[in-house]
Amino acid sequence: MEYSAINLQQKFALFDALWQPKVIAEMNDYQFKLAKIEGDFVWHEHPDTDETFFVVEGNLRIDFEDGTVHLGAGDLFVVPKGVRHKPYAESEVKMMLVEPRGVVNTGEEGGDLTADADVWI
Amino acid sequence: MEYSAINLQQKFALFDALWQPKVIAEMNDYQFKLAKIEGDFVWHEHPDTDETFFVVEGNLRIDFEDGTVHLGAGDLFVVPKGVRHKPYAESEVKMMLVEPRGVVNTGEEGGDLTADADVWI
Repeated sequence: MEYSAINLQQKFALFDALWQPKVIAEMNDYQFKLAKIEGDFVWHEHPDTDETFFVVEGNLRIDFEDGTVHLGAGDLFVVPKGVRHKPYAESEVKMMLVEPRGVVNTGEEGGDLTADADVWI
Repeated sequence: MEYSAINLQQKFALFDALWQPKVIAEMNDYQFKLAKIEGDFVWHEHPDTDETFFVVEGNLRIDFEDGTVHLGAGDLFVVPKGVRHKPYAESEVKMMLVEPRGVVNTGEEGGDLTADADVWI
């Protein structure tokens, strides 16, 4: 039989909502999630896990308390656990996150931008 | 300070060897590895872990005992643990693997194509 690969662009075409990560695959207890973002997110941290950002389209800036990192298409960055960070995108960014199942986008911070952590697309 | 993102194409430019995955980042006890492959790999399995393939350039086919999956650029596929598989690329494929630290490319199979599991680039 022919199995189906998961195409990132096809998955991105299925949703428009910003700051609402969608799960596209699982590997053991880790998940691959797609997100579209624009503007400022909230400062937050994930006390128990690193979090991987991989940019597919656009330019992402992640601010830290002691600096910043800029990611373009094809760039990857791992935010270490416990490090406060704030993603920012001047215009829309399409990105993939890799992190353990159940990680909430706003970490311990909560607030209006908190999304359901386990929505598949 | 300005932190540095990891650019996949810049990392791919640093090596030519086929079937020799290079670690570019770690997230908890998982690693992101880049590999260039061409031709047939060996049949093998990873009894303890799923393994994620993400194609950056080229066309990858993965054969299973009961079927096959084709991946082009921007396609992702998770091979479940314990499932025998054989990657194949008619011409060179650039891909990223995501899997736990220490996973050996040939699984339990060994042989000439077995690469050191923890070489960074």
